[in-house]
Amino acid sequence: SGLVLVKNPHLHLMEEDVLYHLDLGTKTHDLPAMFGDIKFVCVGGSPNRMRAFAWFMQRELGLAGAGEDVADICAGSDRYAMYRAGPVLSISHGMGIPSISIMLHELIKLLHHAKCQDVTIIRMGTSGGLGIEAGSVVITDTAVDSSFQARFEQVVLDDVVVRSTELDKDLAEELLACSRDIPDFPTLIGHTMCTYDFYEGQGRLDGALCSFSSEKKLEYLRRAYDAGVRNIEMESTAFAALCGLCGLKGKSCCFHLL
Amino acid sequence: SGLVLVKNPHLHLMEEDVLYHLDLGTKTHDLPAMFGDIKFVCVGGSPNRMRAFAWFMQRELGLAGAGEDVADICAGSDRYAMYRAGPVLSISHGMGIPSISIMLHELIKLLHHAKCQDVTIIRMGTSGGLGIEAGSVVITDTAVDSSFQARFEQVVLDDVVVRSTELDKDLAEELLACSRDIPDFPTLIGHTMCTYDFYEGQGRLDGALCSFSSEKKLEYLRRAYDAGVRNIEMESTAFAALCGLCGLKGKSCCFHLL
Repeated sequence: SGLVLVKNPHLHLMEEDVLYHLDLGTKTHDLPAMFGDIKFVCVGGSPNRMRAFAWFMQRELGLAGAGEDVADICAGSDRYAMYRAGPVLSISHGMGIPSISIMLHELIKLLHHAKCQDVTIIRMGTSGGLGIEAGSVVITDTAVDSSFQARFEQVVLDDVVVRSTELDKDLAEELLACSRDIPDFPTLIGHTMCTYDFYEGQGRLDGALCSFSSEKKLEYLRRAYDAGVRNIEMESTAFAALCGLCGLKGKSCCFHLL
Repeated sequence: SGLVLVKNPHLHLMEEDVLYHLDLGTKTHDLPAMFGDIKFVCVGGSPNRMRAFAWFMQRELGLAGAGEDVADICAGSDRYAMYRAGPVLSISHGMGIPSISIMLHELIKLLHHAKCQDVTIIRMGTSGGLGIEAGSVVITDTAVDSSFQARFEQVVLDDVVVRSTELDKDLAEELLACSRDIPDFPTLIGHTMCTYDFYEGQGRLDGALCSFSSEKKLEYLRRAYDAGVRNIEMESTAFAALCGLCGLKGKSCCFHLL
């Protein structure tokens, strides 16, 4: 049916569902009226970037109010920022797996309550590239963990549950095809490695702590490259796992900055 | 000497240290002049709350400009917000271990470059309480993981390193003594459990996914209580581990909201 799935038998027993970190709820807001026609959700770490993206989309789509400021739908909360431009929702998720997980749980419930259909979700992040040209865009085929495995380990109470991190292959090819129409826009498909830490976890030599040598760092990054990793960021495995389980056609593509 | 330690042999070889996510750096800013007299650092998830705290401290300390708006020192970045009120620095860290880790790496380097001495760091967070009165403040003696162990597992490249999560005991007693001077301010010392997830990891029945029963949830939370846990949040183990390793006298205390 193309609806967004929630996999929680307790949810329909609740009189009210409060989306705490989005400052929205089923009793305080008419979610189907506000969001029922959403077809695309774009997410990224930085609130300013997601506002700029909504502003850009409003202009690209020739919508009323284009060029004017866009309003933060979650203005009552400073945890995340959310903007819309026609059928496109643009939301920030902060940095790291726990931060994007909270947002995705509440976003998925939002799309479910709003009865949205056939929603595509795209993460547009920044990342560090591995053996690729600066400024390249990496479209993720598979998100892998720090051992280059395509899995996300979710702690449920005190059990560890292993989840798949595969992303939609057709969408990856579709996005790659789009990129070919834009000159000087180097784009490739590859694995994206997701870490829990920016400094010690990604082989950086400039954190407050660093216990490895430059050689050990390079040896690790070489192994990552040989395993198919083309960029490193901090949210893709949780994004792939949660979207996959809830029937959202998801894709992560990242701009390589460093 | 009371100085803040960095444990990274590569750092002094670098010509410039850019604190990316704080929009500060050793070449672009005179860090000793800006921050050399800082004695207290207070951190919390929400940028608005940390601004309100700096505003409050400015008034409490009777500083010039008290009551006026406080300026965000990291205004060039939307990742974190930073304010100062006399010797007190107030910084937001977002939600979850990866987000607070990035901030702490850069904060510790900032305090090191600024040659700050005898700095006390306090995390003032929100949390869910366990078997305690609503509105209570829990002062953390030990941060524990989802298996109630006093440890933080840090992935360094692809190795897992286990770190201690003990916090300063004297500071805990000192804070508890302060709380006794304030009427109707229920405060206790206990263990704080730190999870990677707000919904499935903390036994919530209202996420987009939930695979456990209400009974299983209660059984888990009862075991946590029996292990000494009095509140649950998402940053304390990384906070305790990083501050401990870098010689910062650290303390986490959380307001129990739910």
